[in-house]
Amino acid sequence: MTQFARVAAIAALPLLIATTPSLAAGRTMADVLAAAKLSDWRSPDPNNTLYMDLPSGRVVIELQPEFAPKHAANLRALARARYFDGLAVTRSQDNFVVQWGEADAGKPMGDAKQALAPEFTRPAAGLNFTVLPDRDTYAPQTGFVDGFPAARESATGSAWMVHCYGMVGAGRDNDVNSGSGAELYVVSGHAPRALDRNITLVGRVLQGMDLLSALPRGQGAMGFYQKPEERTPITQIRLAADVPAAQRTRLQVLRTDTQTFTDLVESRRNRQDEWYKVPAGNIDVCNVPLPVRKEQP
Amino acid sequence: MTQFARVAAIAALPLLIATTPSLAAGRTMADVLAAAKLSDWRSPDPNNTLYMDLPSGRVVIELQPEFAPKHAANLRALARARYFDGLAVTRSQDNFVVQWGEADAGKPMGDAKQALAPEFTRPAAGLNFTVLPDRDTYAPQTGFVDGFPAARESATGSAWMVHCYGMVGAGRDNDVNSGSGAELYVVSGHAPRALDRNITLVGRVLQGMDLLSALPRGQGAMGFYQKPEERTPITQIRLAADVPAAQRTRLQVLRTDTQTFTDLVESRRNRQDEWYKVPAGNIDVCNVPLPVRKEQP
Repeated sequence: MTQFARVAAIAALPLLIATTPSLAAGRTMADVLAAAKLSDWRSPDPNNTLYMDLPSGRVVIELQPEFAPKHAANLRALARARYFDGLAVTRSQDNFVVQWGEADAGKPMGDAKQALAPEFTRPAAGLNFTVLPDRDTYAPQTGFVDGFPAARESATGSAWMVHCYGMVGAGRDNDVNSGSGAELYVVSGHAPRALDRNITLVGRVLQGMDLLSALPRGQGAMGFYQKPEERTPITQIRLAADVPAAQRTRLQVLRTDTQTFTDLVESRRNRQDEWYKVPAGNIDVCNVPLPVRKEQP
Repeated sequence: MTQFARVAAIAALPLLIATTPSLAAGRTMADVLAAAKLSDWRSPDPNNTLYMDLPSGRVVIELQPEFAPKHAANLRALARARYFDGLAVTRSQDNFVVQWGEADAGKPMGDAKQALAPEFTRPAAGLNFTVLPDRDTYAPQTGFVDGFPAARESATGSAWMVHCYGMVGAGRDNDVNSGSGAELYVVSGHAPRALDRNITLVGRVLQGMDLLSALPRGQGAMGFYQKPEERTPITQIRLAADVPAAQRTRLQVLRTDTQTFTDLVESRRNRQDEWYKVPAGNIDVCNVPLPVRKEQP
């Protein structure tokens, strides 16, 4: 059986100048993670964590209110109103997105608003932005803000989250003011970066992405399912803070403003695994792993 | 239902300088394709086309012998030896690859070799290279060679195919001379471009990608299936030229060395669909659609 991701250290490859890899030279991602301190990890805030329970298991989504505070508030309200319970996954378009919920389900929305102003960008100032050193096709600069892939540009002083695999956004119609979070999508294919700054990203999937990405593709236009029975029902969506402690999924996410994360990025920019012969020397923001693990007892 | 890919033309968005969009301004991809001439399309060579028949349907793979002639020849020989028939899809790793076949199945290989020298790169000279104008994270220049995404660099004068979604490669072990095509993989997630120049790409999936990408993810290390019954059996892999005419899948692929393709790229660099508000202004080589259609009667 030919494997092509064996983990083994080899002699040092050339270092690049744009990072501060400290001890990164010659280390694989596994090496870097094994040496991480407990303080390199954080526990997501239960007030910013949604559980989407499907018959196949739980999808855990972390919201990012620094970029989309109104959408985060609306999603908390929709979850509390049990708006999503009994709705369904309605769309899976190959190499693009999986989509669920319904903008106009005719159900009580509790304290949620039916439509929100867009939160496509925000001022870059004030963000804890960890810069990625490599060039990007779509943005002047990319990096990470407290665990989420993002971009910024000095010309406008604005920043935005970017559409990497696993990022979750709020569907809208042609009117930019038509989104609410009642209909959500997750990126399930190659990063559709042309969506950046055109739609509000609200967070990302921390666990359970495979429950969505492996769903059969819809055969209708844009991957919508054509028959009701093709849809996957949503048992419930709840805010983690509203779920009894014993039923919570306790995860830890690697902090992106740490030396450990910088070392991890370097271990992926120039792979040290024995299998690799030609180091890439660069990395796309959407190819940087954002490690998640079960909470350590 | 919130759709986010409605097709409708709007007023012209700013043109960029690096392409020659001729009539592209204000046109969507649908507009561009509707105006394509019959001569803008080509029929893949049956000698470079593999059919992988699964219980769920047919996957059509076009080989690219300009980059990997030895691997293409080996795959023709393996198909003729019926090497793959009865083997299986062994791996689906979320956001990475799906893999099938077996390097050491202990079956007759016909005229195929058990191992081949790598075909990671080739001289750029002599290739029909259509340049993409935008910067790329991983390569000095990207573009397309007769329908396949590729990159090149002047420093070494070399060119290589790149790991976009749907690209097919020949698995190898740590030894670069260990690949043969008997074990193949297809990119099913965000382009793992760090693999470029580290493994031999042989072609791409023209049809049936969803039959592979929606397979359940394997729960073993690196997405390998742990139980034989989780594997999808391969009914057969055949070279299209060896299949009776009536059983062939007749497809046409848009030529990438045409004005129509240049216009298509521009329609995606700056989306004209009414839904989009901020044009991206650039495009990643792996976000350029490579249209395939059924042969027109």
